[in-house]
Amino acid sequence: MSDSVPDGLPSLIHELREFVRERDWEQFHDPKNLVMALVSEAGELAAEYRWVSNDEADAWSRTPANFDRVSAEVADVGISLMLFCERTGIDLPSAIRGKLAVNRVNYPVEVSRGRSDRPR
Amino acid sequence: MSDSVPDGLPSLIHELREFVRERDWEQFHDPKNLVMALVSEAGELAAEYRWVSNDEADAWSRTPANFDRVSAEVADVGISLMLFCERTGIDLPSAIRGKLAVNRVNYPVEVSRGRSDRPR
Amino acid sequence: MSDSVPDGLPSLIHELREFVRERDWEQFHDPKNLVMALVSEAGELAAEYRWVSNDEADAWSRTPANFDRVSAEVADVGISLMLFCERTGIDLPSAIRGKLAVNRVNYPVEVSRGRSDRPR
Amino acid sequence: MSDSVPDGLPSLIHELREFVRERDWEQFHDPKNLVMALVSEAGELAAEYRWVSNDEADAWSRTPANFDRVSAEVADVGISLMLFCERTGIDLPSAIRGKLAVNRVNYPVEVSRGRSDRPR
Repeated sequence: MSDSVPDGLPSLIHELREFVRERDWEQFHDPKNLVMALVSEAGELAAEYRWVSNDEADAWSRTPANFDRVSAEVADVGISLMLFCERTGIDLPSAIRGKLAVNRVNYPVEVSRGRSDRPR
Repeated sequence: MSDSVPDGLPSLIHELREFVRERDWEQFHDPKNLVMALVSEAGELAAEYRWVSNDEADAWSRTPANFDRVSAEVADVGISLMLFCERTGIDLPSAIRGKLAVNRVNYPVEVSRGRSDRPR
Repeated sequence: MSDSVPDGLPSLIHELREFVRERDWEQFHDPKNLVMALVSEAGELAAEYRWVSNDEADAWSRTPANFDRVSAEVADVGISLMLFCERTGIDLPSAIRGKLAVNRVNYPVEVSRGRSDRPR
Repeated sequence: MSDSVPDGLPSLIHELREFVRERDWEQFHDPKNLVMALVSEAGELAAEYRWVSNDEADAWSRTPANFDRVSAEVADVGISLMLFCERTGIDLPSAIRGKLAVNRVNYPVEVSRGRSDRPR
């Protein structure tokens, strides 16, 4: 994400809100429907990677045609997520910071290093 | 998302990167695995809303206990999405702006107003 | 599901196995990839219902064009699920019966009646 | 899936229907909600495999503790899928056979052998 446009997020939210309002789509965008949109967009992203092996996933993602297609899918996920946060009044950066604080407790550095499972 | 911290996104990405690096988790975070993490977190968000009806979804989301739980799930989705973008080199705001431009063509205001389906 | 073809399941599994074998696709069908296929197919099914309200969902599903499209998506989910079970050696009916036994304990009739949440 | 209980599927559907009816849960089980349940259960299955590499996925799945946990998640996916089919009147084996016929046309053996992408 870009460091060069520090005011990017609020103006992006504004653009999304306008896009929806012009089309009178708020009626479809209750939180439940937006979550369904989010999971379906996440599923499309998963479809791109289903037959790509772990070993090839980084290189595959850098291939220009794949990069463009994946970027478009990621954008759809991001749009759904931002619309959901907008509708429910969740401040996503704050929510992420809060969750990171929880994760720092649940996954202490000394016991979690190099381990993907949650410590018991 | 907050208007009050215009430089929030880059610093948030920095925090996430540190969290992962300290735990030596880059080895697990290839794009394929991060997409699986994303869909599983999106699935947990869907679990919250599966028995909530459309009519109740807005009010349900505002109830403090639900709001907190949903915020935590949304944060997990956001974290997975940001880690994926970080790993693959996708600038999420740019990708979203690009997709919005495409959507403006695919869903012209005059024919899409009040219709949830894609014009043929 | 049909009562008229009691031996339908084993022969269906046989057909699926042949379809995969003829195309030499076992190489792509490790359990991880099949789970990604499953979530992406489930996401396509979710895409069908994202803007359909709860109140309309039954009638909408019976409309012939929707029924056919949804059936095709459901089939994809079913195929992914059966291929996953085939690959991992899980007997799906047995697994379902085992989970139902667990659910009968976790959701006793007398306290769960008419309530969608899990008893504490 | 078991060859030993050829009449397993109809009796399993009957058990599921009873489980739901006893708890008066039909009110929650419209097709939209059941799809949300399905994607959330599929997401839980994806959670199990997110940090498992392709190379280890088969062996990992056979480890008894993993096998049991995965079986329980797969059962939840299967239950959601069967409840959805029951509610919408979709005969899953028939739907799968229909989709296989379509796939045989879309993925001819001679051009699809050893290739995971769809022929153009």
